[in-house]
Order: sequence, then C-alpha cells, then structure tokens
Amino acid sequence: MLTLALDAMGGDFGPTVVLEGAQRALEWAGDSSLNFLIFGDKEKITPFIERYPALQKASTIFHVDLSVSNEMKPALAVRIARRSSMGLAIEAVAKGDAQGVVSAGNTGAYMALSKILLKMVAGIERPAIPASIPNLLGKSLVLDLGANIDCTPKNLVEFACMGSALAHHLFNKENPSIGLLNVGSESLKGNAIVQEAATLLKGFPHINFYGFVEGNDILSGKTDVIVTDGFTGNVALKSIEGTVKLLRSFLKEELSRSWKGKLGYKIAQGTFNKLHKKTDPRTYNGAPFLGLKKIAVKSHGGTDALGFFHAIKVAFNLASKDFIGLVEQHLNTVLDNKEKA
Amino acid sequence: MLTLALDAMGGDFGPTVVLEGAQRALEWAGDSSLNFLIFGDKEKITPFIERYPALQKASTIFHVDLSVSNEMKPALAVRIARRSSMGLAIEAVAKGDAQGVVSAGNTGAYMALSKILLKMVAGIERPAIPASIPNLLGKSLVLDLGANIDCTPKNLVEFACMGSALAHHLFNKENPSIGLLNVGSESLKGNAIVQEAATLLKGFPHINFYGFVEGNDILSGKTDVIVTDGFTGNVALKSIEGTVKLLRSFLKEELSRSWKGKLGYKIAQGTFNKLHKKTDPRTYNGAPFLGLKKIAVKSHGGTDALGFFHAIKVAFNLASKDFIGLVEQHLNTVLDNKEKA
Repeated sequence: MLTLALDAMGGDFGPTVVLEGAQRALEWAGDSSLNFLIFGDKEKITPFIERYPALQKASTIFHVDLSVSNEMKPALAVRIARRSSMGLAIEAVAKGDAQGVVSAGNTGAYMALSKILLKMVAGIERPAIPASIPNLLGKSLVLDLGANIDCTPKNLVEFACMGSALAHHLFNKENPSIGLLNVGSESLKGNAIVQEAATLLKGFPHINFYGFVEGNDILSGKTDVIVTDGFTGNVALKSIEGTVKLLRSFLKEELSRSWKGKLGYKIAQGTFNKLHKKTDPRTYNGAPFLGLKKIAVKSHGGTDALGFFHAIKVAFNLASKDFIGLVEQHLNTVLDNKEKA
Repeated sequence: MLTLALDAMGGDFGPTVVLEGAQRALEWAGDSSLNFLIFGDKEKITPFIERYPALQKASTIFHVDLSVSNEMKPALAVRIARRSSMGLAIEAVAKGDAQGVVSAGNTGAYMALSKILLKMVAGIERPAIPASIPNLLGKSLVLDLGANIDCTPKNLVEFACMGSALAHHLFNKENPSIGLLNVGSESLKGNAIVQEAATLLKGFPHINFYGFVEGNDILSGKTDVIVTDGFTGNVALKSIEGTVKLLRSFLKEELSRSWKGKLGYKIAQGTFNKLHKKTDPRTYNGAPFLGLKKIAVKSHGGTDALGFFHAIKVAFNLASKDFIGLVEQHLNTVLDNKEKA
C-alpha cells in the first residue's frame, strides 16, 4: 500500500483536475494499493470528492487556506509556500506520512521547498526535471526541463550524472550515452558554458559522453540522454509539443478537404487513433525532481485530469520500485569514480 | 536581370549541391532573369557545370583555392575567409557585381565577414537569422536562429525591431505582434536577460509587444514574431524539424502495420504527399542575415539541392523586391520613434 500526497490547489484548474486525476489513478492502481493525503481548500474539495466514494474512502483531506500562485515572486512564494497546500504536501513526504508528492503548482517554489524539506542526494547541488520522450529508436531522457533557468557547467555535469543513472534503470541500459545539447555537433560550437561542461564531462570515466548533439537529435535517438539547461530544455520540449499539435491539425485539415482524404481517414481511423494516443503530451506528463532524496513529481500546470493521472502514475511507479534509492546508488558510483579518477 | 554570388564550397556536400540547386533556380526563374557568379574550386565545378548548358551560360566561375570549414576556430575562419570562396562571393556583393550572396558555409565566419563587407543598418549592432515557419493560423517569423549564441537584452530588442520590420512586409501586417520566448508567459518567469529585454521593449511605442510566449507558441500563431537568442532559437527550430521527421516516420510505420492502414494510405496518398511537401524543412531553407545593408542568405549546411534552390529563391525574392531597403526604412521609423519617445 502506497500513500501519495497531493497538492489540490496547484495548476491552472485547481482541485477538479487533481481530484479527477486521483480518481483515475485509483481505478488504474486498484483500490487497495493506493491512498491519498489531499491538501487544499476543503470547501472546494468536499463537494467534488463526495461524488466518488472510492476516492473519498482512499483519501484524507487536510484543509489549507494558503496556496502559491504562478504569478508570485519566487522569494515570497517560498516564504508562504511552507504553510501552503504545496508545502504541507511536501512536508507529509518529509515526515514519512507519504511516499511521494504530486503538485502542478509554481515550479520555482515547489523545487526550492522540496530541496529544503526532502534534502538532496550527496554531490548534487540542484534538482533537475527530466522527461522521457519517444524518438525514432525508442525513448530519450531529456533534462533539465525548467527547474534551473541559469545553469553553470557544473550543473550540466550533475544533470548528465543523474540522467545516466535514471536512464540506466528506465531504459535498462548498462551505460547510457549522454549528449550535450548545442547549436552544432562540431566541438567548437556553442557558448562558454556548454564548452566547459563538455570538457568536464570528458573527465568522468563512468559517463558515456557522446559529445554535442542538436535539437533534432532529441527525436532521432542519437543518444539515450540529452542534457541541457532548464531554459533551453523547456523551450525545446514545448516546441516539440506545439509541433505535434500543429501536424495533427494539418493532417486533419488536409484529410477533410477531399473525398479521398475523408475515405482514407475513415478506413485507417484505428491507426490514427493509435498515433494520436502515442503522441499525446498528457501521457508524458509528470516528472520527478531528480536529485532529491524523496519523490516529488511536478505536473504541467495546464494539464487536465488525464495528464494529472499520469503524473500520479509516475510518482506511484517511482515509489513502488524504490527508484530514487536505485538512482542514488548508481549516482554514487559515478560520482565516487570521478573522485578516484 | 539579377546576379547572385554563390559560394560553391560551403556546406556538407560542396559544389554538387550548390550547382544542382543553382540549376533548379534557373529553371524556376527563367533563363533570362538570373545570372550567377560562382566562387570555388574550378576543377570540381567545371565537370559538373558542363552537363548543364543553360547553367554554364548563366554563370561566371571564379577559381578560389581557399575554403572555410565548419571545424575552423572563428578567429582563424574570419582571417582566411576573406580570401576564401565565401569571402570573395560576399565581396562581389559589396562591390556591386552581384545583388546577393548565398552560402551554406561556416555561420560564424559568414556573419562576421558579411558584417564587415556589407555593413550594418544604422542602429543595429548584430545581424540575426530569421525563419518564417508555418503555424496554426498562418506563419510566424522566428529570430535569431543561430547567428548570435550569447545575446544581451539590447540584442533581443534589436531582433524585435528587425522582426517587426520584416514581418510587416512579409505578412503584410500593419503592426505585427512580437512575443519574447521564455519558459512561461507569467511576467516573473525567465532569466535576467529576457526580463530586461521585456522592460526595454515596453519602451518602444511603435513595437506591438505582446509579452512572453512559450515554445509551443512558435507553432500556435499567438504572435506574428517570436524573438529569442540564437542558442535557444537554433535548438527550438531543430527540435521542430526533428519532430516533423519523427511523426512522419511514426505515421508511415503505423499505417503499414495493418491492411486498413495500408488501404487508407493508398486512397489518401495525394493528401499525404501534399502534407509531406507542406512540412518539408528544405522548402523553408535559406535565411538572410537581417540587419545588413545588402543581401547575404545562409543556407543550412546539411541541405540538398532542393534546399539550396530554396535558399537561392530567398535571395532572389529579397533582391527583386528591394526588401532590404523596405525593411531598413521601416526599421528607421521604429528606431527614430524610440529616440523621440
């Protein structure tokens, strides 16, 4: 039996998305394997939760007045966040009442507070948000996706180490290859930060460093892991999502223009539905803050119940396999070997 | 009659791609409206060009021994570039022998040398590479795509001014809206550079500044122009290209898996071909260095003859409409008004 703490007030749509997502997660996991601690405005939560008896039974609601908005300045957000629905949900994990927390709220406050309350793995300075996305050959792990806007070369090296450890377990690869995102694959390209990070990475004997990769390589599968700062990673991931949406719309529009298009679509509809599902960004929603000693999963703020369900699923899977422990172990090997090298 | 200077030695594939691209451009433009000055290794150029009598007739070949490689350090590249096929092609425009130059060579050297030889428009410090890409509503202009890896807030403001001027003419819009690419649309998001650029942009009364936009907005059409530094822009554009390729491959794979998929594809094949063409990155190849007083078009280094043809087409269209003059005029209005404001 796993217990997850949910911040009911985070994200653009608040409790309804969170609770409906939780209800779906419960159906998926089976009633007896998942419990929730739900933090937020009881008045908004209760009327909704009463409609789902199974969810109500599996949940304990903690009333919290405060919530962190996306518009808050980071400093203020962190100060009030501790007593907010987000902060108390994180604290439940810190105290051991829950095995993981899920929030769609203010990324900066969520990360800062998780760092304080859940502690960092030794040797890692800042947590990173990874995503596992499909490519031509299978899947790539991309990080950071927005937890760290300004990165030093050392931060990028840490992301590479964490990415290597996570990909090792996620993709079941002995020594996953690591690419550093840049504007060209030639060794002289890019700014001083990626240049220095590349030099540093060559000094890690247990990191399978491929060298520089480009934006299209995120999708080509050239390397198992793609490392970048949170600004570039965030823009790249959202560009990819936007392109999927655009092409889907182009395809629909073009197919509806002629009778041949319409007929072809009708016949191959099953295939289109499958593809639609395979490329639905909601099914990739939910990413842990990598580098923490416990599980905190960030959901996209603008997602719906299906997306939030997937974020809960990520926390559930991480917790049930003690992924964080495994990644920490692997990370220690990589970092230790560096010191010996 | 227009004359364009071509660097036959730039890009990953050298003269064959350049010459075949030129041949296609000639067929497209009509023999009597386009001439070429071709700079490069005569021994490699002559055997190829002899196969195309029309191209041979329209071209003057200038033998040059030196060429700039992509692997060269920028300082060295610029030093030797002046006497290279690229440098002499640019010089032909500076001297007025040609109305524009096209090269697929080393971006850094190409930009640096163009700045020196072709001069900058008053008020603009660094040229930017724009691209016009399709979105849900029409087209967006994105800049910079890699000419400027590290950007100051002032550089971003210049890109906004140039983007506004170019979009005004390209999209025929009175006052195109300008978005600044960031990790979120909330006003507090992002790093110090985009924050300061946003503050500066609010002081330009003739710039229709929308505010921050995100990666997906490049494709959604939220604003006419998207402004970003060359690092982020390059990664975003290549991520978009990679996604198009990935989805095309997914679609093909899924459709070939069942007889319904195969039949549906067969029937709607015309639609798929149309979509394929609409999203072919080669048809978007070729971007001017915006901010120069003359026309220098950068082609993607890895493109083929079709792509290079499109880059020549861009130079041809810019030159035949005196686009640079129009953009400079519009830019002066924007910049002048700032000073008066």
